[in-house]
Amino acid sequence: MDKELLNRWMGRALELAQKAREQDEIPIGCVIVVENRIISEGINLRETTHKTTAHAEVVALESYNLAHQTWRLPEESWVFVTAEPCLMCTGALLWARAPRIVYGCSDPRQAGLKRVSPWIEQGVFDHRFKEIQGGVLEAECAQILKDYFKTKRS
Amino acid sequence: MDKELLNRWMGRALELAQKAREQDEIPIGCVIVVENRIISEGINLRETTHKTTAHAEVVALESYNLAHQTWRLPEESWVFVTAEPCLMCTGALLWARAPRIVYGCSDPRQAGLKRVSPWIEQGVFDHRFKEIQGGVLEAECAQILKDYFKTKRS
Repeated sequence: MDKELLNRWMGRALELAQKAREQDEIPIGCVIVVENRIISEGINLRETTHKTTAHAEVVALESYNLAHQTWRLPEESWVFVTAEPCLMCTGALLWARAPRIVYGCSDPRQAGLKRVSPWIEQGVFDHRFKEIQGGVLEAECAQILKDYFKTKRS
Repeated sequence: MDKELLNRWMGRALELAQKAREQDEIPIGCVIVVENRIISEGINLRETTHKTTAHAEVVALESYNLAHQTWRLPEESWVFVTAEPCLMCTGALLWARAPRIVYGCSDPRQAGLKRVSPWIEQGVFDHRFKEIQGGVLEAECAQILKDYFKTKRS
């Protein structure tokens, strides 16, 4: 996928993160794309829904599950998420057989996808991501989180 | 918690695993206990619900979330699950601030709670489990899975 398209889908994920922000949620957004078409979207909704698992990726996954009655993502899916998936979301994306993951910024305070990647490479899981790419619109994805936490602390 | 009580709650989780089996799901069950009272239960429902995340632990968590409108488990909770939590469920239990995890058997084909434990000990996450105990009714918890997979392969 070329840079323009990567930025376009991450741009949409950022719009979703902004929607989360407007609901006073930690601003993280996720879109799942197949052949240049969005097949599902999600925003972090933990506070609104009181669901422990309601991170943007899981919300997008569940929306796809419900609409298509399958726990498995299509083989051509690209998952775009503004922040590096956490441990839970990495596990969920592995179970969904997500082929490609693109994220914006990393959260150094949490172990997530990057830390688990060596195990994935070693074949510890039934599934391996074909591609993982971080740093797409990294500054913008980090800034929206930074702004949110700044407001929360002030 | 004494051995008799550990076996009692794991016994209930095993009954739930049997219910999953009857629905042709991978037989795993989970109960969450506070002060000797069950506050939530879950069974693996991935095939029935088509939800990628519908493992027994997540089903039990979400049931608690919905009933009590909070993403956080009570401080006195004990989570009993017949099989070692996978990566996703370990992450979900960390986010739920689950204090104590008791499991039956391990699944050597999957990286889960045990493999992540060193990171938890190192304080990588915001939360640390106070107690993790495996091997409760281990043989029974392993047998129900073995029987299930034997039927599936035959």
